[in-house]
Amino acid sequence: MRMYDIIQKKQNGFSLNEDELCYFVRGVTDGTIPDYQSAALLMAIFFRGMTAEETVTLTECMADSGERADLTSIKGKKVDKHSTGGVGDKTSLIIAPMVAACDMGVYVAKMSGCGLGHTGGTIDKLESIPGVNTVRQRDEFIRIVNEIGVCIIGQSNSFAPADKRLYALRDVTATVNCIPLIASSIMSKKLAAGSDCFVLDVKCGSGAFVKTLKEATELAELMVKIGTGAGKKTIALITNMDVPLGRNVGNSLEIIEAVSVLDGKGDKDLTDICITLAANMLYAANAADYEECVQAVTETIYNGKAKKKLAEMVSSLGGKSEYIYNLSLFGESKVTALLAAEKSGYIYEINTEQVGIAAAVLGAGRSTKESKIDYKAGITFHHTVGDYINEGEALASIYTSSIGKAQNGMELLFQAVKINDTPPKPKKLIYKTIGGRQ
Amino acid sequence: MRMYDIIQKKQNGFSLNEDELCYFVRGVTDGTIPDYQSAALLMAIFFRGMTAEETVTLTECMADSGERADLTSIKGKKVDKHSTGGVGDKTSLIIAPMVAACDMGVYVAKMSGCGLGHTGGTIDKLESIPGVNTVRQRDEFIRIVNEIGVCIIGQSNSFAPADKRLYALRDVTATVNCIPLIASSIMSKKLAAGSDCFVLDVKCGSGAFVKTLKEATELAELMVKIGTGAGKKTIALITNMDVPLGRNVGNSLEIIEAVSVLDGKGDKDLTDICITLAANMLYAANAADYEECVQAVTETIYNGKAKKKLAEMVSSLGGKSEYIYNLSLFGESKVTALLAAEKSGYIYEINTEQVGIAAAVLGAGRSTKESKIDYKAGITFHHTVGDYINEGEALASIYTSSIGKAQNGMELLFQAVKINDTPPKPKKLIYKTIGGRQ
Repeated sequence: MRMYDIIQKKQNGFSLNEDELCYFVRGVTDGTIPDYQSAALLMAIFFRGMTAEETVTLTECMADSGERADLTSIKGKKVDKHSTGGVGDKTSLIIAPMVAACDMGVYVAKMSGCGLGHTGGTIDKLESIPGVNTVRQRDEFIRIVNEIGVCIIGQSNSFAPADKRLYALRDVTATVNCIPLIASSIMSKKLAAGSDCFVLDVKCGSGAFVKTLKEATELAELMVKIGTGAGKKTIALITNMDVPLGRNVGNSLEIIEAVSVLDGKGDKDLTDICITLAANMLYAANAADYEECVQAVTETIYNGKAKKKLAEMVSSLGGKSEYIYNLSLFGESKVTALLAAEKSGYIYEINTEQVGIAAAVLGAGRSTKESKIDYKAGITFHHTVGDYINEGEALASIYTSSIGKAQNGMELLFQAVKINDTPPKPKKLIYKTIGGRQ
Repeated sequence: MRMYDIIQKKQNGFSLNEDELCYFVRGVTDGTIPDYQSAALLMAIFFRGMTAEETVTLTECMADSGERADLTSIKGKKVDKHSTGGVGDKTSLIIAPMVAACDMGVYVAKMSGCGLGHTGGTIDKLESIPGVNTVRQRDEFIRIVNEIGVCIIGQSNSFAPADKRLYALRDVTATVNCIPLIASSIMSKKLAAGSDCFVLDVKCGSGAFVKTLKEATELAELMVKIGTGAGKKTIALITNMDVPLGRNVGNSLEIIEAVSVLDGKGDKDLTDICITLAANMLYAANAADYEECVQAVTETIYNGKAKKKLAEMVSSLGGKSEYIYNLSLFGESKVTALLAAEKSGYIYEINTEQVGIAAAVLGAGRSTKESKIDYKAGITFHHTVGDYINEGEALASIYTSSIGKAQNGMELLFQAVKINDTPPKPKKLIYKTIGGRQ
């Protein structure tokens, strides 16, 4: 078999078979296929696409390119959740404890990546709580999950090394934005991480990298096919990312908001989406009927069990759980400023991608892998899309470490918000569910 | 400027401007752009194409990536000819002396590459004459052209180094077969080689890498645009390469056939095509009206001046010119065999590409740059497409150095020839002329 022939076959619009895809993935993993040939194939895939069958096979090969986590010593069904990334997305921090608090034999053994760019990572958010250390040995991780039903740690570098190399190459050859390659990248790591079933939160809109419902549906359906093809029940939700999720963007700010949801005092949309995601996680694990799952997760808010579970997890990871019960411990950022409405009217649009960039400029994100995060930095919106606001009224607060950053962040945030005389057309929070209860 | 943005721009179907194309070519030449990014761009160009304007600009940048030959000390108009490569193509050896023998102030200062694969190179053919050495200093080359009006030497490695690198990359990433990239590759070297006008022989058919008239026309028109855009009169002929050109394939065998054409005893099609090409070379150099050019080159056959010119050139290059006058000096190959017709009928097809491969197997071609050529090896056809042949009659002779090679070559040659009850539809020898007299 020659890589040249594989490139040419895809270039001519034919489907690649299992032997060819595995040859490619093995060659990428062991470095025997030069990057220029991989780059040529990736660009040919960009133009020619891949069938669902090809994508399933590619994903399995990639999942097999490294370690596969063995979670069999966890006593119940393990469910994993993945979000394609959105600004202000703190759902994992809310739903993982919710699912565990239901005590229905469903475990959340979740491994997350760090955030890069404007979307932020669950690990960074967790580590904004003093003492939390998410670098854990596998047996310790399994012990925590068995004890309290939930644990979130940093993702192993040994999962899907082929994906790591391919992603680095896609990143410099303009081939990131290709649905089959996105689907196989995400699902190869999920499969390697070893859970029994998956819930995928596919973000769609201005703040997501998938902008249209058509693309989001294609991606969601493909990932459900991949998961199902691997024998794992997989449900995908397509959710709105035209506005930031919730009111807070920034690491400790998002922990604070997560706790407010678990206190029953959170933003309605965020609370609703968390209940739906958590219910689907139980449902994917065949814990009960869908309606019972919804009821069970909703109860964990009102009986305080989910918040208690979050505190237990923080504690297990070495963190100070008192922060969960006393949010004022997080303290205040050095510089705080208010963004006032420039005119009266309805908030018509909040450009989510720009909000993410503003938060990163304020110090909440990383520009390179080595950058240090300012955990307190970020944005709190006092109003959201659809609200009527009066000229001069406080629209958002920003938190950062210097006047210069505040000015830059404020400028970006100002541009991100549009106020109009007429209210915007209301949009759905959850567009579609694929693979679950319709 | 970032290579990433250039890739993405082409990927999205936009035209690249001069700054972007020159940035790319410079980066390829000095190695600052990694091969994987070049490979991604080449594949995007394969799918998106390039406008004529883009291709002209790319070619100029590539021609400027290395040395440009200065031929100003040659006293008349310099004309260059290029063939896109065909099996049995010995036209350069015939038409270069023809043009010089006309003595109309038109000079042929030609630099040729070596053959690789199944098509064979002019330099290899010339060097089958004992003593010929085509590695020459530039001033010596110019001295010979000034003295006798014609010289063919090996091509400098310092021409268009960007093309050399890009070609090597295209060769391993399935991006060779792309009209704008082919056109810019050919023309960048032609422009760097410094002649004033060009005649391009674009081969079309089973033995050429351009199989259809549509593709050949596209390539020819693009190369004429590039040449004209660089201020050099350029004429392209699209010629038939469905059958091997002439009767002989192999290095000294092709010298022998070239001489037979110059003796007025050559294959009719080969003679006709050589007269047309040579006449167009004079015409491109504005030497006279087209009809006068045809007459002038035809005369050089019948007055013996073209053959004399070839002998002079061989002599100038250190070769034994007596070989031109006494072809038996080339001697016989170690092993000779006859391929007989398997049945009576019309020769319907001779698969030219397969003939080339058979010749290479017999020893006439190189499989790698380092391979040694057997100058005497090759094939002579006693009949050609359209001829009626009786079962058992000699169709071709093969010449090689061992019984094993003879068997392999014979097998391939046997498969290349199809005999039918009905004659094939006659095909044109020259399909089209672009940029010249219509």
